[in-house]
Amino acid sequence: MKFLTEHLTFQVKTRRAFVNITPDVKELVIKSEIKEGLCLVNAMHITASVFINDNEGGLLHDYEKWLESLAPHAPTTQYEHNKTGEDNADAHLKRQVMGREVVVAITNGKLDFGPWEEIFYGEFDGKRSKRVLVKIIGE
Amino acid sequence: MKFLTEHLTFQVKTRRAFVNITPDVKELVIKSEIKEGLCLVNAMHITASVFINDNEGGLLHDYEKWLESLAPHAPTTQYEHNKTGEDNADAHLKRQVMGREVVVAITNGKLDFGPWEEIFYGEFDGKRSKRVLVKIIGE
Amino acid sequence: MKFLTEHLTFQVKTRRAFVNITPDVKELVIKSEIKEGLCLVNAMHITASVFINDNEGGLLHDYEKWLESLAPHAPTTQYEHNKTGEDNADAHLKRQVMGREVVVAITNGKLDFGPWEEIFYGEFDGKRSKRVLVKIIGE
Repeated sequence: MKFLTEHLTFQVKTRRAFVNITPDVKELVIKSEIKEGLCLVNAMHITASVFINDNEGGLLHDYEKWLESLAPHAPTTQYEHNKTGEDNADAHLKRQVMGREVVVAITNGKLDFGPWEEIFYGEFDGKRSKRVLVKIIGE
Repeated sequence: MKFLTEHLTFQVKTRRAFVNITPDVKELVIKSEIKEGLCLVNAMHITASVFINDNEGGLLHDYEKWLESLAPHAPTTQYEHNKTGEDNADAHLKRQVMGREVVVAITNGKLDFGPWEEIFYGEFDGKRSKRVLVKIIGE
Repeated sequence: MKFLTEHLTFQVKTRRAFVNITPDVKELVIKSEIKEGLCLVNAMHITASVFINDNEGGLLHDYEKWLESLAPHAPTTQYEHNKTGEDNADAHLKRQVMGREVVVAITNGKLDFGPWEEIFYGEFDGKRSKRVLVKIIGE
């Protein structure tokens, strides 16, 4: 059984952003030399997501707008969590809609993806250093 | 370590539908001859979901209605993504609520399920051929 | 390859509650003696969630209020599912937002967590005995 454990670091300059991390994950699959297995990719911070969807700018804009309608940032006083001095309660909610992690099959040494699948890091409370974990297990 | 990789193909005749794929996955667990491990089941398309819930018709109707209220199909012009010529932006949103994948434990050669757990394929932009990946790893 | 399969049992006294199960899962990781691998933690019931977020009381209150706004319990007659004699359709919906399961990497014999990650059991239809499955595979 083989394993690979790596961390990706992000410092997004805006509060919210979507970053396509597919190339980074593909590189780590090659580095792992694992031909058959599972690849876990998860946000290590609780105001960020890792999810799989389409690399299309309009759609990413739609996600941003939709998440803001489901869990608005303002007024920040509507959230109990923000009484701790934070203003990021909405980010914790948005992250639950988009998810913490993805698990991707590795087949013949590659991410076993459908035609349009791309892995994104979703940042909902940026402007500081945050990490994503990539863990690959298999043979 | 043993592996099994299989694809299920769906051609749903309506735009949206829920299909119970539990029997298909159970058959693949038997075929894999894996007694202890993990079973990943994921949609390979980004306008579809795989999720686990109750095989009860009324509930599936409730999901349909609820998802339409959270991410309405019409007016299609409300979404930037649809400017690409698509009309399925809502399907990309609905899929995030219901999820891309499930990971199920395999114990004693069987899906280690609670009493009511059933695996569903959720189609949000059907009428064409789409696939689900089943990847099982273990011993 | 090593495996551990364990069940946690919950009998929450209220309809809805969030229970921090991180200490239980950490104990099972030690018991498994697995140093590198994956840890699946999933609700075995379809009106409950397992998710990872912040152990902060205000935030848990915000989740409760937000989920009730996305998928209200009352009036119970708004849901087809409740015609079966149940009154828990909203719990099936809430569970989809928060998710069924988490998959956590194990590195050097520990849950490979970011600084604030904690695992929660989310109960949306309590007052009866329900279970969570912990399955660990690795070496």
